[in-house]
Amino acid sequence: MSAPLPYGAPITLEHARRVMAAAEAEALAQGWPMAIAIVGSGGHLVMLHALDQVQHGSVAVAQAKAETAVNFRRPSKLFEDAVAAGGLGLRILGMDNLLPLDGGLPLVVNGQVVGAIGVSGMQSTQDAQVAAAGAVALDGASAG
Amino acid sequence: MSAPLPYGAPITLEHARRVMAAAEAEALAQGWPMAIAIVGSGGHLVMLHALDQVQHGSVAVAQAKAETAVNFRRPSKLFEDAVAAGGLGLRILGMDNLLPLDGGLPLVVNGQVVGAIGVSGMQSTQDAQVAAAGAVALDGASAG
Amino acid sequence: MSAPLPYGAPITLEHARRVMAAAEAEALAQGWPMAIAIVGSGGHLVMLHALDQVQHGSVAVAQAKAETAVNFRRPSKLFEDAVAAGGLGLRILGMDNLLPLDGGLPLVVNGQVVGAIGVSGMQSTQDAQVAAAGAVALDGASAG
Amino acid sequence: MSAPLPYGAPITLEHARRVMAAAEAEALAQGWPMAIAIVGSGGHLVMLHALDQVQHGSVAVAQAKAETAVNFRRPSKLFEDAVAAGGLGLRILGMDNLLPLDGGLPLVVNGQVVGAIGVSGMQSTQDAQVAAAGAVALDGASAG
Repeated sequence: MSAPLPYGAPITLEHARRVMAAAEAEALAQGWPMAIAIVGSGGHLVMLHALDQVQHGSVAVAQAKAETAVNFRRPSKLFEDAVAAGGLGLRILGMDNLLPLDGGLPLVVNGQVVGAIGVSGMQSTQDAQVAAAGAVALDGASAG
Repeated sequence: MSAPLPYGAPITLEHARRVMAAAEAEALAQGWPMAIAIVGSGGHLVMLHALDQVQHGSVAVAQAKAETAVNFRRPSKLFEDAVAAGGLGLRILGMDNLLPLDGGLPLVVNGQVVGAIGVSGMQSTQDAQVAAAGAVALDGASAG
Repeated sequence: MSAPLPYGAPITLEHARRVMAAAEAEALAQGWPMAIAIVGSGGHLVMLHALDQVQHGSVAVAQAKAETAVNFRRPSKLFEDAVAAGGLGLRILGMDNLLPLDGGLPLVVNGQVVGAIGVSGMQSTQDAQVAAAGAVALDGASAG
Repeated sequence: MSAPLPYGAPITLEHARRVMAAAEAEALAQGWPMAIAIVGSGGHLVMLHALDQVQHGSVAVAQAKAETAVNFRRPSKLFEDAVAAGGLGLRILGMDNLLPLDGGLPLVVNGQVVGAIGVSGMQSTQDAQVAAAGAVALDGASAG
C-alpha cells in the first residue's frame, strides 16, 4: 500500500458547486433519482442535493459513502471488494464507521484530499458512475 | 392555535434551488458564514450548502432547526419563546426531536407544508433573517 | 460579534504534546485527577490523557468540551454563561452537539483555529484553569 | 479455553506512558501514520495519540479495538480469525460491542488485565505489530 495522500483544507464552496453540478448533470442525463453528498476534509457535510423522488434511505447512504471515502482516504469500492472476496474480508462488516458500498470517492486538489463525494439511489455501479463524474470535475483545479 | 397547514408532497429540487439561492444571496450579501439546510415534508434532507468557513457545529444545528420546523409545522422561534418564558415552557428542553432556536421556518406551497429551511452560523436573529429570505422565495410558487 | 478566526490545518502531534505537557503539569501540580482531551480542527481526537483516579465520566466530558470549543470556535464558558443568565439563554440546553460547561478552549496557531482543548474532573473553574495552562503553551508557536 | 485472567485496577498513567512510548516509537520507526489508544480495565480511554496525517477513521477504530480486547480479555485477532473461518464464526458480525480486526491486545500486569491497547492506520498485521510493541513494554512491570 503506497502512502495515502495527505489531508488538505476542506473543499471550498466554489469547488463543491463544480463537483455537484457535474454529478447532478450525469444523474439527470441518465434519469436516475439520487442523493449526492459532498463532505469536507474533516468529514463535515458541505453540500447535499437530493433529486426529485429519491428514496429516503439514500440520503443517509450517500453521506455515509462520502464519510467512508474521506475517513479512510480511498474509494469505498475497495471495501465492497473486500467483502465480496469473503473470508477475512468479511471482518469489514464489523466496522460501524465504514460503509462498504461503491459510490464514495475522495476529492483531490493539488495532491491533497479536500473531501469526498458519495452517491446513492441506484445500483452501486451507477452510483459510482455519478460520483466519478463529480470527482473528475476537480481535475486541474487549484486550491482556492 | 388554528389548525396547522396540511403536509404536502416533499419540496421539489427546483423549488429547493430557488429557496437556497435566495437564502445564500442574503448570507453572502451580509458576509455571514452559514450552513443552510432544506428538508422535505418527511423531514429528509433535500439540500444543504455550507458556506466557506462556517463553524462545524452549525451544519448539524441548521439541519435540526429545519427538522423542528417541519416536524411541528411552525417556526422554531415559537419554541425558543416558550423556553425564554420559563416555567412550563422549560419542559421543551426535555424533548430530543426539537431544537428551540430561531432560524427554522416551514416552507409552504399552495397552502401545504412541503418542507422547511434551517439556518445556523450567526446570532439566531441573523439566522432567522436568512431563513426568511429563503422561505419568501416560494411566494406565489405553485406545486410542481 | 466580531468575525471568528478561520479554521486551519489540524494541530500537529508536536504541538499537541506541548499543550498536553503544560496542562498535565498544572493538573499534577494542583493534585487534580483530570481527563484532558485535544481535538484537531476537524473535531477528531488527537490526544487524550486521563490522570490516575479520574472519574470515568470525565473522559467523555473532556472530549465534549473540546468538541464544543472547536465546533463553535469559542470558549465553552460563553455557553455556560448564557445558561446561567437564564431566560432566552436556556435554549442552549436544547442543543445536543454543544456542552455548556467551562473548560473548553480553542487552540490557535498563526491566527487560525487548529483545534481545541477540553478538561474535566474538578469544578469547572478548575477545569478551565488547566485548559488555559494548555492553550497558552502555543503562544508564539508557528504552523509546523 | 482456559480461564481468562482476572481484571485488575485500571492501568496507571505511568504504565500507559510506557506502553504508548514503545508503540509510538515502533510506528514512527516504520513511518506509519497511526492512531494508538489505551483503555483501562473498565474500558474507559486512558490515553490516545493520533500521529500526524492519520486517516480520521482510524481514531474510532483504534478505540474499538482496544475496547474489544479488554471487554473480552483476549486479542481482537481471535475474533478476526473466527470471521475468516466462516460458518458459525460469522455470527460475530452481529455483535455491536466487538470489532473483529487484528490490532487490539490486552495489557497485563502481575497476571491481571489492567487494560488494552488498540492500533489502527495501516494493514491490520502492521497495526498488530505496533500494538505488540506497546504491550510488551509492560513485561516485568509491577502494579503501581
